[in-house]
Amino acid sequence: MSVSSSTHPSERRKFALMALDLTVRRGTEISVAQLAAEAGISVARVEAVFPTDADLFDAVTELWFEPHVEIMEEVLGSDLPINRKFHEFYARRFRRNREEFRRDPAAFAVLCDLGARRFEQVRSYVDLADHYLCELIAEAQADGFFPGLEIDRALTLINQMLMCYTMPDLLITINDRLAEDKLAAIVDTMFAGLSATDGGASGLKALRPA
Amino acid sequence: MSVSSSTHPSERRKFALMALDLTVRRGTEISVAQLAAEAGISVARVEAVFPTDADLFDAVTELWFEPHVEIMEEVLGSDLPINRKFHEFYARRFRRNREEFRRDPAAFAVLCDLGARRFEQVRSYVDLADHYLCELIAEAQADGFFPGLEIDRALTLINQMLMCYTMPDLLITINDRLAEDKLAAIVDTMFAGLSATDGGASGLKALRPA
Repeated sequence: MSVSSSTHPSERRKFALMALDLTVRRGTEISVAQLAAEAGISVARVEAVFPTDADLFDAVTELWFEPHVEIMEEVLGSDLPINRKFHEFYARRFRRNREEFRRDPAAFAVLCDLGARRFEQVRSYVDLADHYLCELIAEAQADGFFPGLEIDRALTLINQMLMCYTMPDLLITINDRLAEDKLAAIVDTMFAGLSATDGGASGLKALRPA
Repeated sequence: MSVSSSTHPSERRKFALMALDLTVRRGTEISVAQLAAEAGISVARVEAVFPTDADLFDAVTELWFEPHVEIMEEVLGSDLPINRKFHEFYARRFRRNREEFRRDPAAFAVLCDLGARRFEQVRSYVDLADHYLCELIAEAQADGFFPGLEIDRALTLINQMLMCYTMPDLLITINDRLAEDKLAAIVDTMFAGLSATDGGASGLKALRPA
């Protein structure tokens, strides 16, 4: 996603904003040619900024995730206690998504659907969120939480327990059941109970030699 | 969903099985007329069993959820320790869904999609699962787990923490990350950490008068 030296960053942003708006209105991914037609400028001028349709889609994706990346970096850089950091790491992105959803439910659904179909383009943001979450897990473990768990194991369990608050599709389907105080209760549950200890739910412990 | 006294239960089941098969093959809900045409019998004969398309759809839904209801009733009636009951309540239905998904991913996706679009027809099964989960929660609380929580509050938190293992759509999208040992770890976390205690994640506790 390098910016061509001959184009101004603000033009890149302006085109990406137009493409995001068009994507939502048309309900589908926008090509360089469609963007040029809509903007009333030449394809060549758009291609000078976005050589391919994929470059344009990447820029739209970047624009969409920009506030999420800012939120995560702000929370990681804060001096909150680690359980508060965990909560804010999720709550602020959930709040942002919910605002976007409420502002325009149809547009939000279009972007969710597009994100699901073009998951490879979105993956780097999912990976980034995982990377930051691993940092939070390491910090929590340094404070004695999640004892005995490998970081990757804690990562997958936490991702699953909090899936409702990160997966935008679920914001649509179970919207009225999601709430920040429930998110906080789940984070509290994790901090009080998540560890490598086999509590016996699987029933496999009993099968091990005593 | 009462069975007309003039029709044989096995005919009802036979028609429902045919309709389920047709639903999956055509990727859409099947009408009484379509079922009659496919089966080479008169519409009147199908209508004697299923007076409306909605009745037929209900029978197909019932057929799909039958094993899930059996699993839940079997687990509730067992003499397992309560944390083992919780695990089996989810693990056995997850296993069943996963088998169906692996057997025919396209068919599974069709049924998920149909269930989402016709959620009102599916709701009674979701409500039944909630009802049984409430019984398990009450049993757990009698044993001292989930202290201080209202049953409805425990219900919504547990539903959210285990959403990955109950929502069939997620079985499709994050299939390779789901595993029974992770499910057991989440159940263990709940039994070790879920309570009405404010652990401080929300940060609101500090605002209360000391």
